[in-house]
Amino acid sequence: MIHRRTMFADLEIPGNLFSEGSPYTFMGLPSDAEAFKSARVVILPVPYDGTTTFVPGTREGPRAIIMASRELEPYDEETETEPWRQGIFTLPELPVKISSPREMVERVKQAGLFILKHGKIPIMLGGEHLMTLGLVSSLKEFYSSENITVLHLDAHADLREEYQGSPWSNACVARRILELYPLVSVGIRSLTREEHDLVRRKAIPFYPAAQLHEKPALWNSIVENLSDNVYITIDLDVFDPSVMPSVGTPEPGGLGWYEVTGLLKQICLKRNVLGCDIMELKPIPGMVAPDFLAAKLVYKLCAYLYRRKGDLRPLDKDLTNC
Amino acid sequence: MIHRRTMFADLEIPGNLFSEGSPYTFMGLPSDAEAFKSARVVILPVPYDGTTTFVPGTREGPRAIIMASRELEPYDEETETEPWRQGIFTLPELPVKISSPREMVERVKQAGLFILKHGKIPIMLGGEHLMTLGLVSSLKEFYSSENITVLHLDAHADLREEYQGSPWSNACVARRILELYPLVSVGIRSLTREEHDLVRRKAIPFYPAAQLHEKPALWNSIVENLSDNVYITIDLDVFDPSVMPSVGTPEPGGLGWYEVTGLLKQICLKRNVLGCDIMELKPIPGMVAPDFLAAKLVYKLCAYLYRRKGDLRPLDKDLTNC
Amino acid sequence: MIHRRTMFADLEIPGNLFSEGSPYTFMGLPSDAEAFKSARVVILPVPYDGTTTFVPGTREGPRAIIMASRELEPYDEETETEPWRQGIFTLPELPVKISSPREMVERVKQAGLFILKHGKIPIMLGGEHLMTLGLVSSLKEFYSSENITVLHLDAHADLREEYQGSPWSNACVARRILELYPLVSVGIRSLTREEHDLVRRKAIPFYPAAQLHEKPALWNSIVENLSDNVYITIDLDVFDPSVMPSVGTPEPGGLGWYEVTGLLKQICLKRNVLGCDIMELKPIPGMVAPDFLAAKLVYKLCAYLYRRKGDLRPLDKDLTNC
Amino acid sequence: MIHRRTMFADLEIPGNLFSEGSPYTFMGLPSDAEAFKSARVVILPVPYDGTTTFVPGTREGPRAIIMASRELEPYDEETETEPWRQGIFTLPELPVKISSPREMVERVKQAGLFILKHGKIPIMLGGEHLMTLGLVSSLKEFYSSENITVLHLDAHADLREEYQGSPWSNACVARRILELYPLVSVGIRSLTREEHDLVRRKAIPFYPAAQLHEKPALWNSIVENLSDNVYITIDLDVFDPSVMPSVGTPEPGGLGWYEVTGLLKQICLKRNVLGCDIMELKPIPGMVAPDFLAAKLVYKLCAYLYRRKGDLRPLDKDLTNC
Amino acid sequence: MIHRRTMFADLEIPGNLFSEGSPYTFMGLPSDAEAFKSARVVILPVPYDGTTTFVPGTREGPRAIIMASRELEPYDEETETEPWRQGIFTLPELPVKISSPREMVERVKQAGLFILKHGKIPIMLGGEHLMTLGLVSSLKEFYSSENITVLHLDAHADLREEYQGSPWSNACVARRILELYPLVSVGIRSLTREEHDLVRRKAIPFYPAAQLHEKPALWNSIVENLSDNVYITIDLDVFDPSVMPSVGTPEPGGLGWYEVTGLLKQICLKRNVLGCDIMELKPIPGMVAPDFLAAKLVYKLCAYLYRRKGDLRPLDKDLTNC
Amino acid sequence: MIHRRTMFADLEIPGNLFSEGSPYTFMGLPSDAEAFKSARVVILPVPYDGTTTFVPGTREGPRAIIMASRELEPYDEETETEPWRQGIFTLPELPVKISSPREMVERVKQAGLFILKHGKIPIMLGGEHLMTLGLVSSLKEFYSSENITVLHLDAHADLREEYQGSPWSNACVARRILELYPLVSVGIRSLTREEHDLVRRKAIPFYPAAQLHEKPALWNSIVENLSDNVYITIDLDVFDPSVMPSVGTPEPGGLGWYEVTGLLKQICLKRNVLGCDIMELKPIPGMVAPDFLAAKLVYKLCAYLYRRKGDLRPLDKDLTNC
Ligand SMILES: [Mn+2]
Ligand SMILES: [Mn+2]
Ligand SMILES: [Mn+2]
Ligand SMILES: [Mn+2]
Ligand SMILES: [Mn+2]
Ligand SMILES: [Mn+2]
Ligand SMILES: [Mn+2]
Ligand SMILES: [Mn+2]
Ligand SMILES: [Mn+2]
Ligand SMILES: [Mn+2]
Ligand SMILES: [Mn+2]
Ligand SMILES: [Mn+2]
Repeated sequence: MIHRRTMFADLEIPGNLFSEGSPYTFMGLPSDAEAFKSARVVILPVPYDGTTTFVPGTREGPRAIIMASRELEPYDEETETEPWRQGIFTLPELPVKISSPREMVERVKQAGLFILKHGKIPIMLGGEHLMTLGLVSSLKEFYSSENITVLHLDAHADLREEYQGSPWSNACVARRILELYPLVSVGIRSLTREEHDLVRRKAIPFYPAAQLHEKPALWNSIVENLSDNVYITIDLDVFDPSVMPSVGTPEPGGLGWYEVTGLLKQICLKRNVLGCDIMELKPIPGMVAPDFLAAKLVYKLCAYLYRRKGDLRPLDKDLTNC
Repeated sequence: MIHRRTMFADLEIPGNLFSEGSPYTFMGLPSDAEAFKSARVVILPVPYDGTTTFVPGTREGPRAIIMASRELEPYDEETETEPWRQGIFTLPELPVKISSPREMVERVKQAGLFILKHGKIPIMLGGEHLMTLGLVSSLKEFYSSENITVLHLDAHADLREEYQGSPWSNACVARRILELYPLVSVGIRSLTREEHDLVRRKAIPFYPAAQLHEKPALWNSIVENLSDNVYITIDLDVFDPSVMPSVGTPEPGGLGWYEVTGLLKQICLKRNVLGCDIMELKPIPGMVAPDFLAAKLVYKLCAYLYRRKGDLRPLDKDLTNC
Repeated sequence: MIHRRTMFADLEIPGNLFSEGSPYTFMGLPSDAEAFKSARVVILPVPYDGTTTFVPGTREGPRAIIMASRELEPYDEETETEPWRQGIFTLPELPVKISSPREMVERVKQAGLFILKHGKIPIMLGGEHLMTLGLVSSLKEFYSSENITVLHLDAHADLREEYQGSPWSNACVARRILELYPLVSVGIRSLTREEHDLVRRKAIPFYPAAQLHEKPALWNSIVENLSDNVYITIDLDVFDPSVMPSVGTPEPGGLGWYEVTGLLKQICLKRNVLGCDIMELKPIPGMVAPDFLAAKLVYKLCAYLYRRKGDLRPLDKDLTNC
Repeated sequence: MIHRRTMFADLEIPGNLFSEGSPYTFMGLPSDAEAFKSARVVILPVPYDGTTTFVPGTREGPRAIIMASRELEPYDEETETEPWRQGIFTLPELPVKISSPREMVERVKQAGLFILKHGKIPIMLGGEHLMTLGLVSSLKEFYSSENITVLHLDAHADLREEYQGSPWSNACVARRILELYPLVSVGIRSLTREEHDLVRRKAIPFYPAAQLHEKPALWNSIVENLSDNVYITIDLDVFDPSVMPSVGTPEPGGLGWYEVTGLLKQICLKRNVLGCDIMELKPIPGMVAPDFLAAKLVYKLCAYLYRRKGDLRPLDKDLTNC
Repeated sequence: MIHRRTMFADLEIPGNLFSEGSPYTFMGLPSDAEAFKSARVVILPVPYDGTTTFVPGTREGPRAIIMASRELEPYDEETETEPWRQGIFTLPELPVKISSPREMVERVKQAGLFILKHGKIPIMLGGEHLMTLGLVSSLKEFYSSENITVLHLDAHADLREEYQGSPWSNACVARRILELYPLVSVGIRSLTREEHDLVRRKAIPFYPAAQLHEKPALWNSIVENLSDNVYITIDLDVFDPSVMPSVGTPEPGGLGWYEVTGLLKQICLKRNVLGCDIMELKPIPGMVAPDFLAAKLVYKLCAYLYRRKGDLRPLDKDLTNC
Repeated sequence: MIHRRTMFADLEIPGNLFSEGSPYTFMGLPSDAEAFKSARVVILPVPYDGTTTFVPGTREGPRAIIMASRELEPYDEETETEPWRQGIFTLPELPVKISSPREMVERVKQAGLFILKHGKIPIMLGGEHLMTLGLVSSLKEFYSSENITVLHLDAHADLREEYQGSPWSNACVARRILELYPLVSVGIRSLTREEHDLVRRKAIPFYPAAQLHEKPALWNSIVENLSDNVYITIDLDVFDPSVMPSVGTPEPGGLGWYEVTGLLKQICLKRNVLGCDIMELKPIPGMVAPDFLAAKLVYKLCAYLYRRKGDLRPLDKDLTNC
């Protein structure tokens, strides 16, 4: 059981009545200033879906992940750790700015800088994929280092120059990121001819879902294409719709649970992960399994980050046995 | 049965096989150029919900209304007419522009001008309420006449100066309209203190739902506050959520079917209605009754418009007995 | 706009980035110790549904009310007040004890005593109706005064001696309460022959929904049957299922929004209300209107309590104009 | 509590373990041969929806009513009776015949004759409205008496000569019935011009919903148009969609719970009711209130039938004049 | 982006306002006479579900596929083609005839002949599986050639002699087809003992899902059992319910996306495909992934057909590089 | 087709009208005393979910399985048998006792003893997993034999000493069982550190899902860890959520259909299975595939039991060829 501080510590409550009552944070972990200071990972919920195309509602994604996270088992049986002990702090939802997608991206960037400046690892919960541009922009500003690669897990290339009258669309986010950092794309199974040409022209390391399906050995080559430092952006539609139907633009033929987590574990063991995001959850009312998968994916990332070999920011203490 | 022209007229089809097969237009009415020319009413579907706040998904409203309209009975028993005979033409969905809400408003204005210039009455299907500003702006540009009043049926005042960082929000649409035309608001039951003060300061004719509930006589005074020419904007949340749960921001204590249609009939009999909209339908999957109500409301408006006493554009022929 | 304190007050955040980001409390109001101290009303969420009979899931009621409350307009147009200014504090969800319903009732009683001892008015959010017994028991223990009546709004008499092998069932809650305080029951339209006999034998003031429907004058007599001090328990199935389908045991022929709120206003004006509860919300996935109605009902209660004539605890300052 | 016979009477079961376990019959009442013999009312579930037009799924109506009926309170507080004591027997679902709607109508007729020949009152649960023709046909064959009127509660006139290429459609059921018996139609708010003309030409007593809404006094005249013997057919879409959204073709502006039950009570007090049906329930997954309304309506009918003119069992045989 | 002709070509519209607004056709492709003439593939939507057994609602399948198809990427990354360029024309929904299933089959046959006579390849969207008999019958009449095999992908054998009182049921469709053409059945995992015996007696090439699961090599033998010319009928329940839950009779243990598309590609490369159908989609409200899978399957078929080696009707122009 | 006895055998019904009308039992099989006597398997539905944690509603599981079972094909193609011929009798739902979980466990134990004493194999349908303790307790009391192993298929270890204030929780069921019999756990992918330690300390044969995924050979070793006599408890969340989303606590990375059924077949061939249960189905409204999977799993168990090598109770007659 996770031990929680309560605001009632100094009040006289019979039997410590509310001590287990968990706040609406990731796993119900504490949300006070002390918790922020000692946290290693900071969750940034961004309930924005202004440019979503097909099924609306990814604004409800962050909340659904947080709600489902309250049912997570604190112990991760795979790594034999309790990742919450490293400190996972949940920020309040980032307020939406509707004036234009670009201004919302800027707001995410400011939030990202706030997290990075405090020496934390940001994990953003979306919300639509365009927001990734904001967090990647904050990395660009914060780190002088150039050797960062963005690992892009998605069913879609997201490499359009413009979509629905704007270059600031979730369908263009990888294109915008490409202007900042090198990209490695995994799981793609929907793209335009123009995107296809761009991939070839720019020689973007590109791993379509169908190829990974036919040649499992390809999985091993992905890590090799990454620089020492990595940002991971996960559009949840990279998963097969059978395990993740709760996305706005599902595409058949996607990846499985062990494939994605296996890849993430490899990357965290061999590279420095500076930040991540889990985007595009559009909860289906009455269907909780996909929300829980997303929450467990966040926690798996925490577990893998916890264990990783190197780090830009040193771990203060060994938490492995606490 | 509605008779339909088909594209197969000149092809040899056994038994006129597809003649009843209705296209996905309002009531399945024809969508060719001839139909456009003879139509008196033009339906403009605007599947945009970029600034929606609570429940997302009003982008699906126009489609749901059109689908439900296919089940409408062509005959209107109340007026003893068949309103479809006056010609109801459905435009394709207006493409969404995501760059900013303001640009989408401009696009709606262009579409409105297109309809008005061809001498048709526009009925917009939303989509979010902010779009009303586009259609009202097209009226402002098209008509030199100044004596137009906007009748605003809504649960919310929509009179905020700004919301979520923008003056172009559905929560501000009545405030923006007020900069163009006088306003009469009916059915309101949610507003801010600032909006409340504005209503008093500007002496906006204002009919809260609770007052209409207590003093039914108030209904009669609404028409008197309207100028000769009227634009009617209906935020579907003006209805009670019992009959219209499929909106993004439902408010208890709303109006009933006979109250709203009774009011609309009075207005159409006594004033010139230059355009209307039915906004904010957010379909609930698996629940068709509210979608059908919205479709029938559109058709009721057509029936009332059909019968109305005067008209800026004369009716060419008497359709009453056709 | 509600002004919120944030935990980031002492951190350097560009543009006060998160200041609007609302926590998952009623209306997103502050949840720190300062907020608790200055609050007049304390919300107690009890996500327990261990003895529910028909449709399971009232455990999700408190969360759904809190989520919907975030969309409430801070200003109440009926009373022309902003009730949140009196201070509304949301406790964390009361942890569930599954060993037996009776032990859970005891836990609610302890929570109620905690609230009462700090001089606050409790408003419980359910969760199943049996929990009311816990809160009423805390009143019994806290107040020496005997002249308290429990006003019971419900579709069901809840007067069974035992149900499904236990006297601690939601179907027995009014019977258990009757052992503590006099009862006035309003809106009932389902009861057993035995309950019917008990009502007559004990001369319980009893207002079936059908009678209120036929003789509206009866509404006025309800208040007269109440003592000076009142506890109000609202089983949401007292409403008609058209406005409140999201209950475990819906019954046709129930009360309307203005009927229930009109009664509550009268009571708050003429009696001292020591506590209330809103029970038995079982959210229907994808249908937000009933959740919002429940949230608005809570806020209406706050508005009425705010304005009431007398009070066991005097109001420190006049908040009417703030 | 309803006492039930069990098949385990002669087996040695500790503590009469299963005695409360209710079978899947109306209210979980016994389904053995003894129960059939002593029953006065026989429920006939007909899960057929072969000619349904808009929303499919009325085949699931009978099952949903039976499931919901298990939550009914045995005691009817309005009549102060326990209607189940007169004996309510539930037949197994009538097997569907898909070859043609006409053959399914014939099958219903045979089932109706089976019930009538055993001296029972049939209450059919639908399933689509066309099936009513089968049960009315069985009355025509069974009773020599000619003075039977069919009371038709519906949102639609159902008076088309033919629909979708067949005279055997739910849209034509009243027209087919009219060939057998006089008709009185109540609650109609959707019809074709041809149906409208037919009503006038044949002088069918016709009570549109809008007229009942404006002139409540009309309700009293309905009974006067009925002959001594009556068959009641209820298309559930006669109700307003706010209380009954679970139909295939909802129409706004319908009747309320107390209006319909008030009318049914008057008829049962003043006329002989020879049979009834409750048709067109199309359950909405996850929404139980409308199913329960339909079940309670069936039970209300039993209560009214129970109380008519004189009773308290045993009714010997001739039910025609009771 | 797909270029679309609009009816407004000759009207003066500012900025070509509606040019992107897509009609409700497959992928929003043009639906005028010119489009019909140049199309190679013709989509025939058949919204009929008169004989469906378990879950009703396959009538909504065609519409759901068409709606989802609007989100398809025009470019097919696997074949590196843009299949829409070969011309895909969507007919209006075939009007339903309810008089009997047999008459509806006849209507489909007439529609099939209409398509075949114009030299197009029909792709039918269902709707229930029985309708396949209509399209296969049109092939039988149109082609003198005898060497056609029907490839049947399904979870069920559909080989019953009769079901629910009729030989014209979706449960009998393969039996009826067998009277016209040889059959190859793939993916079966539910059949009766009688069907099992028939398969052996008639030596029907039969590939149960479990065998394909255990011996992947079997996949290669399927094509060998097909004659030069092939009709492909796909009952969507052939897929595993994890990827395709939206069918009326789901069966666990079905096929995957790459298995089915891999097989279809092989067939299109090595055989002449004269027509296809995608049947039995019963959309689940609020769950769009299965509808999209069905739409993408249709488009995959178009891509494979586009590329195929031989053809009864020569391709006029090489579209491969356009 | 399954032949059914009807209660109408001695009544004069035209054309044996209701003979196919199936009762609401597993597969609609007879529910009379004769059927009980000749049955080999007895289905025990236990609609209890008092201690469920995450998503409520497993009380609806038994009913959903029974409803779905009516669509099962009587013939099992894998074993080439018709398992229903061995006799499958469905008891009425076990009435719920809400006083405490422990008392409900006791009630299940009594029901289990009733079944065992009549020489039948019990298959329990849940309802929550804690109920397994009741049925296992009945085995403990009934069989003197000590060599029984409980095979536990689950995503969760369920080995907590206590949960939510009680040792009688579904989260503790395996721990309670361990006090009675040895345990073999398969498919686990969520457990606490304490549970993990207990597994090691007690050397419980433990097969996490991830290991089975990586080393398929492990499957073979499971049977070797079982004693001659086996009780099988299946928490449906052992399946991957893609095929079984309808559970209260879904966990990604679970087992597939052929994996689970393959294991069950092996066990039934090599061990004596004395009883089983299928627990934790929480139906998702409108989604029938998971309910059907659970029903087919029950029937698969019957098929495997039917065929098994040895038996504590000899099979009276060879049913293999009937
Ligand atoms: Mn994507
Ligand atoms: Mn993306
Ligand atoms: Mn509004
Ligand atoms: Mn509005
Ligand atoms: Mn109640
Ligand atoms: Mn209650
Ligand atoms: Mn009707
Ligand atoms: Mn009808
Ligand atoms: Mn099939
Ligand atoms: Mn089939
Ligand atoms: Mn489990
Ligand atoms: Mn378990």
